[in-house]
Amino acid sequence: MPQKTFRMVVQYDGARFCGWQRQGEDPTVQLALEQALSRMTGRAVVVHGSGRTDAGVHALGQAAHVVLDTRLTADEIQKGLNALLPEDVAVTKCTLAAEGFHARYDAKSKLYAYHFASGSVRPVVGRQYCWWIKKPLDHAAMARAAEHFLGTRDFSAMEAAGSPRSHSVRTVMESRVTIHGQNAVYWVRADGFLRHMVRNMAGTLAWCGTGRMDPDAVPALLESRDRKKAPPTAPAKGLFLVEVEYGKERP
Amino acid sequence: MPQKTFRMVVQYDGARFCGWQRQGEDPTVQLALEQALSRMTGRAVVVHGSGRTDAGVHALGQAAHVVLDTRLTADEIQKGLNALLPEDVAVTKCTLAAEGFHARYDAKSKLYAYHFASGSVRPVVGRQYCWWIKKPLDHAAMARAAEHFLGTRDFSAMEAAGSPRSHSVRTVMESRVTIHGQNAVYWVRADGFLRHMVRNMAGTLAWCGTGRMDPDAVPALLESRDRKKAPPTAPAKGLFLVEVEYGKERP
Repeated sequence: MPQKTFRMVVQYDGARFCGWQRQGEDPTVQLALEQALSRMTGRAVVVHGSGRTDAGVHALGQAAHVVLDTRLTADEIQKGLNALLPEDVAVTKCTLAAEGFHARYDAKSKLYAYHFASGSVRPVVGRQYCWWIKKPLDHAAMARAAEHFLGTRDFSAMEAAGSPRSHSVRTVMESRVTIHGQNAVYWVRADGFLRHMVRNMAGTLAWCGTGRMDPDAVPALLESRDRKKAPPTAPAKGLFLVEVEYGKERP
Repeated sequence: MPQKTFRMVVQYDGARFCGWQRQGEDPTVQLALEQALSRMTGRAVVVHGSGRTDAGVHALGQAAHVVLDTRLTADEIQKGLNALLPEDVAVTKCTLAAEGFHARYDAKSKLYAYHFASGSVRPVVGRQYCWWIKKPLDHAAMARAAEHFLGTRDFSAMEAAGSPRSHSVRTVMESRVTIHGQNAVYWVRADGFLRHMVRNMAGTLAWCGTGRMDPDAVPALLESRDRKKAPPTAPAKGLFLVEVEYGKERP
């Protein structure tokens, strides 16, 4: 049978999952996809994601690929998966990719969105998808802090404590805050992200937004490369992996 | 102690509830509010809503009132309730009302919103809050059908089968469809609603939107007063009670 590489865009609600990456039989998105593909093809399958997402983090556009010996078309793979997958995962797009395409190594950038809800009353409808901050948020201070994350920098201060240190320099191409009534969304695009990096940036924005930190103190915080000086990590449930960008595919 | 009437606006996620109205010990929003108020005041409490909502229906702005012998202020009642209530209910507003105010009898109109999601892939993020229709929706046909619901009419054809028949005439002041990408929201305001009325209207809009029914057949359907001729009831999870309107309160 022909060997085909399929490229997928995956949406998931992170609430029930121990993140993207397979960890034995724990509920993970990777395992859910692999189990469904194994049922469809009758053999063991390995799905490769563009990278991990933490337990509780959502995705509107995680990217993945899989190599299969199959006669099934991309459309049949997508329909079969969406019929077999649990209700908190779906494949929103599936296409045949060039041989050798790799969801992780070929990724050029990723866009994340972090959702803040603000107001004296905790949110109920949609509470699963935001971080509620009781104090009013100073959106201008958050926007100013966000600007300081732009550029090519060492983001060690925004990296999870105890992460293996190899290379902590990343390039942030987009870093901005959009306002939605009392609520705010932080958008950040980079060529790669360190462990907990967006959630640490969101935690820093929350401190700036509530007046606990001066937004213009962000550059010195980054220069310190000291995670212990940074505000606490924002909760996973406010974070969405929005899209993964790739260069033009080889024909 | 002084007797006070408090007026409340209540937000809830209907997923876990057997609707608004107390039914013994089943999880209902009314019971959750009454239990929390009983804990705060040390005595049995009855909360009066503007009306029922079905199991699974959400509310952004259900209205209710309660009469209490208490020294607590409206602000203290609200904060206490929001601390005690489960995460799927919150009181978004609480004010002291004129004596004799009644959430049900004084209501002038209610606004509901019904959320349709459309597209070949089932929604994942936010699936709790919409009805997914796989076929593309003809938004113009839905808007045309919605117009036919405007005015003072006998809505028996949109009433749950087997409902007690007393008075099935209601006045619909607003009935329109807003478009959000592939998705659509149906907004309907009336002086009152029959059992399952909005969900039957939404079911009718879905048939018109997918070409199973001509929108201009709606007037004849209403005139038939025959529920059996109408399309199936739309699922509860797409429906939100948005607000309840009252006349100006007596000073």
